[in-house]
Amino acid sequence: MTRTGVRLGDIVDRLGGRLEGDPEQRVDAVATLESAGPRTLSFLANSRYRSQLPGTRAACVILGEVDAAQCPVAAIVAVEPYVYYARAAAMLQEGREFPSGRHPDASIAPDAQVAQSAWIGAQASIGSGARIGEAVFVGPGCVVGDGVTVGARSRLSAHVTILAGATIGSDCLFHPGVVIGGDGFGIAWDGERWLRVPQVGSVRIGNHVDIGANTAIDRGAIEDTVIEEGVKLDNLIQIGHNVRIGAHTVMAGCCGVSGSAVIGSYCQIGGQVGIAGHIRIADHTIVTGKTVVSHSIREPGKRYSGALPIDESRRWQRNSARFRSLDKMAKRLAHLERLHKDRKP
Amino acid sequence: MTRTGVRLGDIVDRLGGRLEGDPEQRVDAVATLESAGPRTLSFLANSRYRSQLPGTRAACVILGEVDAAQCPVAAIVAVEPYVYYARAAAMLQEGREFPSGRHPDASIAPDAQVAQSAWIGAQASIGSGARIGEAVFVGPGCVVGDGVTVGARSRLSAHVTILAGATIGSDCLFHPGVVIGGDGFGIAWDGERWLRVPQVGSVRIGNHVDIGANTAIDRGAIEDTVIEEGVKLDNLIQIGHNVRIGAHTVMAGCCGVSGSAVIGSYCQIGGQVGIAGHIRIADHTIVTGKTVVSHSIREPGKRYSGALPIDESRRWQRNSARFRSLDKMAKRLAHLERLHKDRKP
Amino acid sequence: MTRTGVRLGDIVDRLGGRLEGDPEQRVDAVATLESAGPRTLSFLANSRYRSQLPGTRAACVILGEVDAAQCPVAAIVAVEPYVYYARAAAMLQEGREFPSGRHPDASIAPDAQVAQSAWIGAQASIGSGARIGEAVFVGPGCVVGDGVTVGARSRLSAHVTILAGATIGSDCLFHPGVVIGGDGFGIAWDGERWLRVPQVGSVRIGNHVDIGANTAIDRGAIEDTVIEEGVKLDNLIQIGHNVRIGAHTVMAGCCGVSGSAVIGSYCQIGGQVGIAGHIRIADHTIVTGKTVVSHSIREPGKRYSGALPIDESRRWQRNSARFRSLDKMAKRLAHLERLHKDRKP
Repeated sequence: MTRTGVRLGDIVDRLGGRLEGDPEQRVDAVATLESAGPRTLSFLANSRYRSQLPGTRAACVILGEVDAAQCPVAAIVAVEPYVYYARAAAMLQEGREFPSGRHPDASIAPDAQVAQSAWIGAQASIGSGARIGEAVFVGPGCVVGDGVTVGARSRLSAHVTILAGATIGSDCLFHPGVVIGGDGFGIAWDGERWLRVPQVGSVRIGNHVDIGANTAIDRGAIEDTVIEEGVKLDNLIQIGHNVRIGAHTVMAGCCGVSGSAVIGSYCQIGGQVGIAGHIRIADHTIVTGKTVVSHSIREPGKRYSGALPIDESRRWQRNSARFRSLDKMAKRLAHLERLHKDRKP
Repeated sequence: MTRTGVRLGDIVDRLGGRLEGDPEQRVDAVATLESAGPRTLSFLANSRYRSQLPGTRAACVILGEVDAAQCPVAAIVAVEPYVYYARAAAMLQEGREFPSGRHPDASIAPDAQVAQSAWIGAQASIGSGARIGEAVFVGPGCVVGDGVTVGARSRLSAHVTILAGATIGSDCLFHPGVVIGGDGFGIAWDGERWLRVPQVGSVRIGNHVDIGANTAIDRGAIEDTVIEEGVKLDNLIQIGHNVRIGAHTVMAGCCGVSGSAVIGSYCQIGGQVGIAGHIRIADHTIVTGKTVVSHSIREPGKRYSGALPIDESRRWQRNSARFRSLDKMAKRLAHLERLHKDRKP
Repeated sequence: MTRTGVRLGDIVDRLGGRLEGDPEQRVDAVATLESAGPRTLSFLANSRYRSQLPGTRAACVILGEVDAAQCPVAAIVAVEPYVYYARAAAMLQEGREFPSGRHPDASIAPDAQVAQSAWIGAQASIGSGARIGEAVFVGPGCVVGDGVTVGARSRLSAHVTILAGATIGSDCLFHPGVVIGGDGFGIAWDGERWLRVPQVGSVRIGNHVDIGANTAIDRGAIEDTVIEEGVKLDNLIQIGHNVRIGAHTVMAGCCGVSGSAVIGSYCQIGGQVGIAGHIRIADHTIVTGKTVVSHSIREPGKRYSGALPIDESRRWQRNSARFRSLDKMAKRLAHLERLHKDRKP
């Protein structure tokens, strides 16, 4: 965090809310209610932590109106304490000074255009014709390919790989191991072997997109793979070629999205979900974890599931063994029902 | 693509098919029917794009006999337009000039043998005794360990890691984040803690093997992990120690293959499939996405599944709750059937 | 392995067991019974390999009392041959000489503290204030962030990324592509877009922790993500923010653990398991592959499952189609049962 910290008065001036306490008080870190110390900012957004409020040693706590009276230290009263906290914590981080310039062990093609305010870290490699925008951070060990564009203030944490021709928006955050622009899985069977189908499309990523560690987004086969603005992808996700993900959709870790799937905007996809190729998912769809989406979802705003609940192994085995005769059970049941009908009269 | 492009006449001379148009016409890129421009080659292999044919502005379209009459521009008539397209697109890429030599920021052990025609990229590291074949491309940030062999024309895109002793065939293509030769998950419980069992085998990869981004293939415990020729692996796959994958098998993203599994040749494994350890899968087996293969599959050429279809969450919950009493349901059904039999007479 | 090898006498002096053979005999590699040659050490721990014993050409075989009489070469008789093998194989590896010092192409911040006996490999980057302990191995292409601590004898194989502030214990082994300390997936919906919630916690990893290739462990949101001593994680695992994994727990590949899950000690988690956020799993729990753990498991030492068995696709489709009416089937069955009761009298 910053050396000098941020005034509480400056926080409420910028973010709103009601300060109950000294506006000159400064904070320079965030902490939980329980672990907070004298120059830290904490928050209470979940009632199960309410019991920790009276004993906190934070400098200031962000909380809702209902908790304001019980706060033993300065308080910022906000309508949505968690969202307020996210903004205030980001404000504390603004103070962080990012370097600009080039580490002496970076490798930059002579014809790459790197903004003066950008930073290229140790052992990073910037390809020919790449354009690195204002205040971009390229961390240690990153590879930025030929002709790649990275928009202003985007951060490539470390060991991020962006292959030739991809376009990255502004204010993005990519974590280590992210791969943008690997070839899509395009193969054609020629009767004897699988031919590699050249993947000549690229990847276009909008502004404010965050991508988690070791997530891979393939380039398009001919046209581009597109991730629209505000999308947030967690770790270890696979996005196939020609996929399109709509704005402000979020996806938890370990998902796999097959080629040419089109996912709408404002969707929420749980962890380990699999999405089949060439299908469409409507806006505002919610899919819970481990589900396989094998067909298009056309009606927006609905919630889908597909994972069975865990069970103690022996009971699970008894039940899952029966699954193999479920169709027969259904027929036997129907047969019994007919017998009943026949007898009734 | 190439500067000067490729003559249509040269394409049909090499690949066969019937050209309807000027053999002197040149193309230097591929495109979809819809987005094609004057020097691009397009194709029509899927009838749902047929309506785009009359309006295309491609220089030439690869298509089947049935569509030849409707083509407004030059056409190459082929029996299998998609396979033909794969070959023609690859031909266009041949024109691409790959560099040879060494980037000044590469790090190469003095006793490594690097062919004159190979390229070692920026920030790459080549270990002691490694042998890099003719026209091999080692992209930026790759790590090639001690004693590794990479066959002719193989391409390590960027940030590929190949650990000591592995052998890679010719004409392979490995995407960023690929890890070859990490230790297998070999542990032994000594009564108090898990002991690490040294993994002293290696990895042998055949010719024409493609491996997707962030896929990991472990070294063998004692003997080698083996990937045979022509295998195509998608992104984010885990291959355990001592696994053997037969020639020309393909596997979609996010699969996990446990140690010592033996997968046959010409298999097709869908995304997110899990394959148990120490089992065998016969040649030409097809496994659909998300399935768990927990036992050996001995009969070749069959198709297997194991994932439930998605459903609207509330309905899903009602059904999946019943799953926990499926065994009881089966018993109750059998009981009713017996009652019926008893009554019948 | 070592040049000069290890005396069989030294092995039993250190590890116990009974040597039947010449203590001056030396071995310098391990091998399977079948592939073993004159200076190799083999073992017989699984009765299905018993038939290979008479024909082995190993210098010495580690085996149980029951097999001792049939051994055609020197034998070490041990109570647990596999555990004994793990220790003996590790002893052979001890002879391996690791380098110390710095590769000329490493990039080390001037104020980093690197032990004299540690090695920093080619193209590696060590951040400001990092502390690298005695005999630590930092392989080629690794990124160690500012203020990171790595304990004695830990090995970062290659391309490992450890971001700022993380603490790594001693005797750990991290494989290529491991990412420690990426941001947790913390986002807050502000009514229009997802706000990134700053992740200001860190990661603390105990001693003797092994982490497989391309596995990612996120930093905590405010407090730390914690991996306790002796934990063994396989490849391509995702560990969310604020997760705690208890000592000596092992987890197979491709698992996903959501934020704030607390996993006990001595657990065994199968491959592709998904663990929901904010739940607790008791000590000594076993979870078989592909299961979704959506609720806390409070009773220790039990075994849980959740994956359906594979089936031939057509039969699978018939059964899984019935799953969608399982709730209705249960109601119809109950209805029939009531009809029977009504009739009985």
